[in-house]
Amino acid sequence: MKRIFDPVHHFIGLSDAEAHLLDLPVMQRLRRLRQLGLAYLAFPSAEHSRFSHALGALAMGTRAFDELVRQGPEFFAGADDVDRQRRLVRAALLLHDVGHGPFSHACEAVLGVPHEARTSELLALPDVRSAIEALDVDPGEVLGLIVGDADSPYPALRELVSGPNLDADRMDYLQRDAYFTGIASGRYDAEQLVASLRLYEREGRVVMGIDARGVVALESFVMARYMMFASVYFHHTTRIFERVLQDVLRELWPDPRALDPISEFARWDDFRVLNELADHQSEAARALRERIVVYALAAEFNAERDLRKYEACERALSDAFGSENVWADEQSQVLHRLPLGIGQDHTVWVGSGATLADAREVSDLIAKLTGKAYWRKLFVKRQRVDVAEARRICAELVLR
Amino acid sequence: MKRIFDPVHHFIGLSDAEAHLLDLPVMQRLRRLRQLGLAYLAFPSAEHSRFSHALGALAMGTRAFDELVRQGPEFFAGADDVDRQRRLVRAALLLHDVGHGPFSHACEAVLGVPHEARTSELLALPDVRSAIEALDVDPGEVLGLIVGDADSPYPALRELVSGPNLDADRMDYLQRDAYFTGIASGRYDAEQLVASLRLYEREGRVVMGIDARGVVALESFVMARYMMFASVYFHHTTRIFERVLQDVLRELWPDPRALDPISEFARWDDFRVLNELADHQSEAARALRERIVVYALAAEFNAERDLRKYEACERALSDAFGSENVWADEQSQVLHRLPLGIGQDHTVWVGSGATLADAREVSDLIAKLTGKAYWRKLFVKRQRVDVAEARRICAELVLR
Amino acid sequence: MKRIFDPVHHFIGLSDAEAHLLDLPVMQRLRRLRQLGLAYLAFPSAEHSRFSHALGALAMGTRAFDELVRQGPEFFAGADDVDRQRRLVRAALLLHDVGHGPFSHACEAVLGVPHEARTSELLALPDVRSAIEALDVDPGEVLGLIVGDADSPYPALRELVSGPNLDADRMDYLQRDAYFTGIASGRYDAEQLVASLRLYEREGRVVMGIDARGVVALESFVMARYMMFASVYFHHTTRIFERVLQDVLRELWPDPRALDPISEFARWDDFRVLNELADHQSEAARALRERIVVYALAAEFNAERDLRKYEACERALSDAFGSENVWADEQSQVLHRLPLGIGQDHTVWVGSGATLADAREVSDLIAKLTGKAYWRKLFVKRQRVDVAEARRICAELVLR
Amino acid sequence: MKRIFDPVHHFIGLSDAEAHLLDLPVMQRLRRLRQLGLAYLAFPSAEHSRFSHALGALAMGTRAFDELVRQGPEFFAGADDVDRQRRLVRAALLLHDVGHGPFSHACEAVLGVPHEARTSELLALPDVRSAIEALDVDPGEVLGLIVGDADSPYPALRELVSGPNLDADRMDYLQRDAYFTGIASGRYDAEQLVASLRLYEREGRVVMGIDARGVVALESFVMARYMMFASVYFHHTTRIFERVLQDVLRELWPDPRALDPISEFARWDDFRVLNELADHQSEAARALRERIVVYALAAEFNAERDLRKYEACERALSDAFGSENVWADEQSQVLHRLPLGIGQDHTVWVGSGATLADAREVSDLIAKLTGKAYWRKLFVKRQRVDVAEARRICAELVLR
Repeated sequence: MKRIFDPVHHFIGLSDAEAHLLDLPVMQRLRRLRQLGLAYLAFPSAEHSRFSHALGALAMGTRAFDELVRQGPEFFAGADDVDRQRRLVRAALLLHDVGHGPFSHACEAVLGVPHEARTSELLALPDVRSAIEALDVDPGEVLGLIVGDADSPYPALRELVSGPNLDADRMDYLQRDAYFTGIASGRYDAEQLVASLRLYEREGRVVMGIDARGVVALESFVMARYMMFASVYFHHTTRIFERVLQDVLRELWPDPRALDPISEFARWDDFRVLNELADHQSEAARALRERIVVYALAAEFNAERDLRKYEACERALSDAFGSENVWADEQSQVLHRLPLGIGQDHTVWVGSGATLADAREVSDLIAKLTGKAYWRKLFVKRQRVDVAEARRICAELVLR
Repeated sequence: MKRIFDPVHHFIGLSDAEAHLLDLPVMQRLRRLRQLGLAYLAFPSAEHSRFSHALGALAMGTRAFDELVRQGPEFFAGADDVDRQRRLVRAALLLHDVGHGPFSHACEAVLGVPHEARTSELLALPDVRSAIEALDVDPGEVLGLIVGDADSPYPALRELVSGPNLDADRMDYLQRDAYFTGIASGRYDAEQLVASLRLYEREGRVVMGIDARGVVALESFVMARYMMFASVYFHHTTRIFERVLQDVLRELWPDPRALDPISEFARWDDFRVLNELADHQSEAARALRERIVVYALAAEFNAERDLRKYEACERALSDAFGSENVWADEQSQVLHRLPLGIGQDHTVWVGSGATLADAREVSDLIAKLTGKAYWRKLFVKRQRVDVAEARRICAELVLR
Repeated sequence: MKRIFDPVHHFIGLSDAEAHLLDLPVMQRLRRLRQLGLAYLAFPSAEHSRFSHALGALAMGTRAFDELVRQGPEFFAGADDVDRQRRLVRAALLLHDVGHGPFSHACEAVLGVPHEARTSELLALPDVRSAIEALDVDPGEVLGLIVGDADSPYPALRELVSGPNLDADRMDYLQRDAYFTGIASGRYDAEQLVASLRLYEREGRVVMGIDARGVVALESFVMARYMMFASVYFHHTTRIFERVLQDVLRELWPDPRALDPISEFARWDDFRVLNELADHQSEAARALRERIVVYALAAEFNAERDLRKYEACERALSDAFGSENVWADEQSQVLHRLPLGIGQDHTVWVGSGATLADAREVSDLIAKLTGKAYWRKLFVKRQRVDVAEARRICAELVLR
Repeated sequence: MKRIFDPVHHFIGLSDAEAHLLDLPVMQRLRRLRQLGLAYLAFPSAEHSRFSHALGALAMGTRAFDELVRQGPEFFAGADDVDRQRRLVRAALLLHDVGHGPFSHACEAVLGVPHEARTSELLALPDVRSAIEALDVDPGEVLGLIVGDADSPYPALRELVSGPNLDADRMDYLQRDAYFTGIASGRYDAEQLVASLRLYEREGRVVMGIDARGVVALESFVMARYMMFASVYFHHTTRIFERVLQDVLRELWPDPRALDPISEFARWDDFRVLNELADHQSEAARALRERIVVYALAAEFNAERDLRKYEACERALSDAFGSENVWADEQSQVLHRLPLGIGQDHTVWVGSGATLADAREVSDLIAKLTGKAYWRKLFVKRQRVDVAEARRICAELVLR
């Protein structure tokens, strides 16, 4: 039994076998992958790694699991079954991000291999496989929870590990990213959310949901995610450097299959990428090295209805400065992942007495927030464009 | 110059004249009015007073005012004008809650006199008047800011003191109530909101608004208010005791004009009310004294569409148990106070370059959240109703 | 099972019988006793009550107890014994402050009855006694833990409830007082301290101690206590009003036996005292009502060696202004309560492998801090003394 | 004017020229130097960089400087002088850590070049020099403040930048390290300390000191430093890996002059070191890569008097297992840096009215804590030593 201290969740306990798993090179590598990629160029303190997040996901997931057991012991076949499922969900949470490449999303965008595919290969490495077996869990079941296997015999655990709504991954990263950036609105009512988690039986299947008293906590969870997207994940400085980074990665790996051998993949991390740039002469490499903000924000449109204005501005800027000097960056996110069609799988079920309702029915807030949020930004190249003029052009079009 | 330490805003500075104002009986009385009334019966630590809130509103309002000056010095007629307006807004913020009676809202509900009317009388008391004059501000102007006088020569300050959207009152109380209850989702991005405050000229008038970079902070502010309503202000336990309290207050003051002489009003506070109950034999007094939860929650409906179900359940409960044993508690709040008609007065103006837009245009979140949130609760009297049966009746109607 | 949310410890769970105990008038009365007496006149937000502290002590004590069980199951006679002792320590922690009168220390000073004596009488009241019995614990054993009965069959629990070093009372109040005043240095490493708690057998008796890895946490606990004394508990404003308060209480209760009937005692609280003052014409009552700071600090001496200077200044001030206008306020506290003679009862035992050492042997910090800290303040009456002159007199003597 | 958000100090403002300085490669390099070296192997979240610390030192130093000006305008020759000194102290704080090599202390230990020497060379680089000049300050004066030039014309600023007692460096790093590790006892009363800073004239020279009301804050500052040493900086896991790291660095740089050319030095950082290890076959490199804890703690002695026991245990372990398998790690730190001889330079002067006293005279706590704290650990090599037997040997010697 080992205890690790974390500023977000305080003591996090580990069995000896779990501690051993953490020491494997594939896990230690996560210390060299930053949870928020290049966001530290906008929020200097956002330097926390996927390693500390893996521990945090373990902590939140375990609290969630223990609450499910406390509130619904009838869903488990005795103490042994509880212990086994607990070991399983903990293993999956520790390993859930192991397949991320350097700067996760940029790496996936450039190489085209989703991190789930890497995970599968990494879990098959002999030292990883034997460390998982030492946890007394099935490596295949661990993988199933991580990649969201539709046939997993543990649908509730799968939801907890890789579900779209109530996953421990997000339960940790929102709190953690809020802590390390200092963004107050990224916090949500974590204790209350966990305390409201329940297992329910619905149409013959076990689903994870919340007790009616947890609806506000669920709403706070939905909102915190939005706030972090708006403040941090899609911050214009972050976006600019992520774009630059993709150019850099393409330089580094002209062959998109360069990292395909898993042994090669496992040797790459954020730090190595930054290191290899030291002598690159390209504009992109230099931009990353010296934090040169290559683009300037000419206009920003965050309302759905602004699509036409956004497109008009983009055209006007391209006409004025050449499309190669304009970058139209359109990001969107569903405000929550509760699907439009009521009765489908991926909603959050809310229990109240004997009834079970869809979260969108009991929460007007969630119902109103159905749909997407947009972050549309028009950037121009600082070196080649008169930024003031670009802003003037957009402002004029907006006023019309 | 005096410094007071506050856990939310840290050091809060006061001039000698302000410190003297604070020591007046009318201000010291605020120490015996709890900011959240009876909410401490649900959240035991929510025992903070309107006195600490007055200091907090002063702190937030001063930061906001200083930012307005820093960003828009052209809106002021030199250093003297800045100093004078600063003294004025500070005086108004310190005094803004002085007219609240014991348990504010309950007192108003029972006696029918709004706290603004009391404020006017209290500010006219000789010691208060002379303390205000010692601040080198005009008592009439102070009152104008507090009661939201439409003719105030300082519309931006009035907005800061008593406005519906960007007031320092709320800027403090959300943070303070979140701190003292521990509700994480009640926090908002206060630093970012204050940093984005701006004065703008619009149609020949000075209005307060925010810079476009502050939109997310504004959204977080709107959401924090909702979260506090949902978690704390309309918590079912709070609601139950507020109802009981009204019965108690009617017992205490059979004549609704009992507190009309301002000298009498000034002698009442939460503590005195609790004290006078010590020997009352009524059920209500005993309930308050011994925290007897007189009502039980039979059903709760928080979605707008549930109106009909709510009404059906109310009828069914009344039929089953008698309407005197059922309490249908319907609360609602607009999710934000930006009015429906665009172009009207009370929106938040968002500046971006030369343009000025309505917050509902630039924020889909705010646009989507237009309208009201509802908290409809059906309670039954615990002593006279079979609670399980009442819940069953409602559950059955809901399922239909 | 009921859950109460607290900003310091988050959810605190209660059994139904414990919740019932909390609702008794003797417990509800604790909501009207402020944990820090009049300190709110120096720290406006320090308005928290002994009620929220009772819940906090329950929370910390339960965590501590659970850790003792986890680390030393061999000290308990099976699951039933653990459950019983757990119920017992929880009952004692909930009730430990029930005997405090209005403004605790001032009340004891004026009436001369220690709160332990009141506790004994209160626990014997029929409704309290039956509520305790409903917890399935022995009222006599509960009282034994609270008053520190030397013959208690549970020496470790007694230490946890009323011990001088590792009591849950202090574990909560330091965190709580630090939170509500905002004093950062009042925080200590609570998680680490609790995680290091152990039961040991020493000379045939069970003692509570800490594992060697918890020494720094223990040091932080000792220091936090000092910091809170220095910053808050002995703050000069607090001291001034506590002195004034004693005058007021003597006015209120000219007969020191006025509160001796326990039924009368139970009807008094801070709020009632403040209330009864409303019409008192005495200088003291007015001072409390209008926060008139009757005394001014002429000089302050916090080093032990300053005793002679302190006494010389007191004499000089008395000569100059009359002793009735000078108040020499000498407070002291042992820096920790680990006694000088090694091997005595009340030290903290530190385990390391098979050995057990005295905390003063393993911690130089604790060893160095043996002895007392002093807070000696010389006050003069503002109305009757030239304060600047008083300060000049002291400064001159100090410089000599 | 640019604003950067930091979770510890919130918004930190920068002039354009300061922002430009930050973007230089020598400053961006600080993002790849972790503030706490390898402590993240014990505290996974302690991954914050010297870059965020440089911003934090700027924030604390500016607050401190502004308070010095507010409280002692007479020490400055008008607004221009204030502005110039403010620019100067800010430049020095931003640059104060620029000379640190990879893993700071380990690098210095292995290469033998103090970071001050590197700083001097780095500040002479053309791009750095011109960026400093663009701040309208003298590069020589900046260097003087950083290296603690005894002849600096600004002794108070030098104290603020590189002094042993009241430096902004420590004011930030204690708060920051406490935040990122989560160690509560590492926090001190920062607001109160800054609010008490004063300039005094003493024996014809300007010295920085504190007002008497800040003594407790100073004590909390002294204690926080001790707590961080005890909990984090000298944590046994940190110590073990720092030792391993030195072996690794000697492998990497067999020639201690390898980094002497400043252009080469500037190309090294923590990340590059970790990267270069990827294929090293040495035991040390592998240990770092896979977090192999090479040593086990056999015994620990933190009290001064334990020196003899410590030495006896070391001898016994060496006899039993061979001295090459035993590591006796003795660390010590003065508890504060206020020198023994009263009246010397480096104390903190405490003002009270007209008098000025040494902090050790007015604070018994500081006086008692004079001297050193010791952290003496005996480690054995896990692979070659029976750890249980080693612990037994030590325990037996201790008991004697």
